[in-house]
Amino acid sequence: MNKVKPALLRGFDQEYLPREQLQFNALIDIIRRNFELFGFLPLETPSAERKEVLISKGGVEKEIYALRRLADDPDDEAATKGAMRFDLTVPLARYVAMRERELAFPFRRYQIQRVWRGETPQARKGRFREFYQCDIDIIGREKLGYFAEAEIPGVIFRVFSEMGIGPFLIRINNRKLLRGLLRKYSLADERAAAVLRALDKIEKEDPARLLRDLESEGLRPEQARELFGLIAAERTTDETLEVLAGLGDRGEDLQRGLDESRRIVAAIRDFGVPDAAFRMDLRVVRGLDYYTGTIYETTLLGHPELGSICSGGRYDDLASHFTDTRLPGVGISIGLTRLFSKLKEIGLLKPPPRTPAEVLITTMEGENHREYLEMARLLRAAGINTEVYLEQARLKKQFEYAEKKGFRIALTAGGNEFASGTVLIKNLATRTEIGCPRAQLVESVMNTLNLARG
Amino acid sequence: MNKVKPALLRGFDQEYLPREQLQFNALIDIIRRNFELFGFLPLETPSAERKEVLISKGGVEKEIYALRRLADDPDDEAATKGAMRFDLTVPLARYVAMRERELAFPFRRYQIQRVWRGETPQARKGRFREFYQCDIDIIGREKLGYFAEAEIPGVIFRVFSEMGIGPFLIRINNRKLLRGLLRKYSLADERAAAVLRALDKIEKEDPARLLRDLESEGLRPEQARELFGLIAAERTTDETLEVLAGLGDRGEDLQRGLDESRRIVAAIRDFGVPDAAFRMDLRVVRGLDYYTGTIYETTLLGHPELGSICSGGRYDDLASHFTDTRLPGVGISIGLTRLFSKLKEIGLLKPPPRTPAEVLITTMEGENHREYLEMARLLRAAGINTEVYLEQARLKKQFEYAEKKGFRIALTAGGNEFASGTVLIKNLATRTEIGCPRAQLVESVMNTLNLARG
Repeated sequence: MNKVKPALLRGFDQEYLPREQLQFNALIDIIRRNFELFGFLPLETPSAERKEVLISKGGVEKEIYALRRLADDPDDEAATKGAMRFDLTVPLARYVAMRERELAFPFRRYQIQRVWRGETPQARKGRFREFYQCDIDIIGREKLGYFAEAEIPGVIFRVFSEMGIGPFLIRINNRKLLRGLLRKYSLADERAAAVLRALDKIEKEDPARLLRDLESEGLRPEQARELFGLIAAERTTDETLEVLAGLGDRGEDLQRGLDESRRIVAAIRDFGVPDAAFRMDLRVVRGLDYYTGTIYETTLLGHPELGSICSGGRYDDLASHFTDTRLPGVGISIGLTRLFSKLKEIGLLKPPPRTPAEVLITTMEGENHREYLEMARLLRAAGINTEVYLEQARLKKQFEYAEKKGFRIALTAGGNEFASGTVLIKNLATRTEIGCPRAQLVESVMNTLNLARG
Repeated sequence: MNKVKPALLRGFDQEYLPREQLQFNALIDIIRRNFELFGFLPLETPSAERKEVLISKGGVEKEIYALRRLADDPDDEAATKGAMRFDLTVPLARYVAMRERELAFPFRRYQIQRVWRGETPQARKGRFREFYQCDIDIIGREKLGYFAEAEIPGVIFRVFSEMGIGPFLIRINNRKLLRGLLRKYSLADERAAAVLRALDKIEKEDPARLLRDLESEGLRPEQARELFGLIAAERTTDETLEVLAGLGDRGEDLQRGLDESRRIVAAIRDFGVPDAAFRMDLRVVRGLDYYTGTIYETTLLGHPELGSICSGGRYDDLASHFTDTRLPGVGISIGLTRLFSKLKEIGLLKPPPRTPAEVLITTMEGENHREYLEMARLLRAAGINTEVYLEQARLKKQFEYAEKKGFRIALTAGGNEFASGTVLIKNLATRTEIGCPRAQLVESVMNTLNLARG
């Protein structure tokens, strides 16, 4: 028979070996547990939505995948009107607009699902066409206070602390501050947007070139230098607040941004985030026009090349395309597939803490399998993941299997052990073996497991 | 602004309110935990695969969704060569063929992901175009013993027992038996396949009509009646084995099927599955040609109208389209989206056992929020999901929020409580409130939670 080559599509290729999948799932577990610790409720939305829903926000059509039927296109609205979601924010907006009356506000949801984008895949940059996003958002109805903006770093701090992937910094800024600064220079709105886009590159671009860019958008040379000096300098959070407070002629936006930033910084500290893990930084700009208040980026301090591993911000109106109800909110997103691929590359992934491969019960031909199955039943009843080696094979082969699959413990019993009512427990990490009475099986396995888990 | 109607696509519309999502997730948790208890490793595969991979098995093209780019179609192989998976078995076959050398055999994997099929959606039947499948498979390299076939009902039994959705019956049959029976009547292979398809309807079709169908496939009237009588009768497992043993002129297939069935039935009992929960039943046929040994169907005894909620079987060669290595296996699939929709309809879903909405800390204007946040931090450190009400609102409104979101406990503290170092703990289920010293906060909340969880 002619064989089909078993291969994946470019960009749809982040598929893991079992051990990697366990490591990936461990990160998902940490993210989910911490999201839930803060009272965020789970949400999953369909993979495909109506095109008009997806493109309502504008500017994304180029990257969206649509559906069609492979054979013919019968009367199937998914194939004629449907496309795959490219983020989790638009589906959230549609969801909240649809179910406004049934939800409790402020509505706090988390969503951990895949999204699809027709970007050019670049494994080196961790850019794929199918990837996981892990989002939280807090959505108010008509209003949402600044405390929600301060809580977000509290959640991020817990997530990345628990992941144990090294020191990280949550950098925040406030769009009102940026807007206020640009107002000082009396820039028209479209000019201000262009200046923001230029400033977004402040950490990558050559300063001389950036200054030229700012001038070409209408700033006078001394204004460009002043703005650049204000934004580009390395400062602590309190230094930044001080510098802003020292600016004369602040105007309304800048003053509001400053007042808000002070309150939010104080609240972030109250949420238990240490100054070593967050910083107010005027260089954080974020591309999207959408944001109106605090904006967030998170970087691994030892690995700036990763860029931001968790970003987001405050917005004024989530679902204006779908409903007249004003739904202000704040949210962040972790691009987990990308983060995982980079952590794997730089060797920051830890051994999976949880594995279905805890105990392997080896078996011997000719023995009564009922005994093995009964041991397995006892261990499973105690919540211990237990596999019985069900094939006929020499013990050597069974131990090779245990090794390859990564079991922590192997149990062995044959005629001698059955006669004396014992079983051999081997810790596969230390390669030490103890005998134990059958009556103490569960207890002994638990003790050995605790040792083997380290 | 013109509004876009927030709506879903037909068939892509199984989206839940938070409470339902928690119930759905509770079922996923039970399934995953039990799969892992038996040593199955997690696997996730990409949503889209190469078309030639997906259609390698044949006969499914009509229902497959392909991808295209919404705007233009640049050089994107996902858009030109990619389509969405319609099951989890074909991706498994491709995965095992690709990674044969890196996997430990027998390879036991579980996979809980969505699949997409362009069928006609029928909510009444629980048929959707996007739905979850929860699969386990045990794949041998070159060989796989019959014990694996006996373990599958052991897993199914644990899953549905723990779900607590009422009594259920795992019905098994063996394809070798069916084939052997048809050989008795010397039917050509294509005729035998047609007879099997006819027999697959034995529980739904009018007997007279079924007999006519069998005759039109080449059986003589007395043969048709004999076959019908053999298969259609209600019997216990042991009665079925006895009837088969009593047949003269059994031939090789029937004899092998009988020997295997006896061993497998004995092993299923050894796996701890009570006779009340499984039965050998010759009426189980399964459509797919693919199966070669034991086949499984599972029905809720009180709700036969649901049809099979968990099906599968033994097959001889998983990945013959991709590799020369013979990969015999056995697996089952739970169609969870359908099951959930039917359980919801007939009221068999239980309140979600786990919720992010455990403790709400209500807040009062003018009080120092640091105190509230500190309480939250202590509770979260003890693993208790805790939300602080961050908006300014009257207590009445905060309690309404707690009610609507389904919190179990609300904490209240104002000037009096802060002065006396206490906090009020309200059990929202019983509407009883106790005061407790701040120093005993975690302990008291835990006690109340245990009561509130019931």
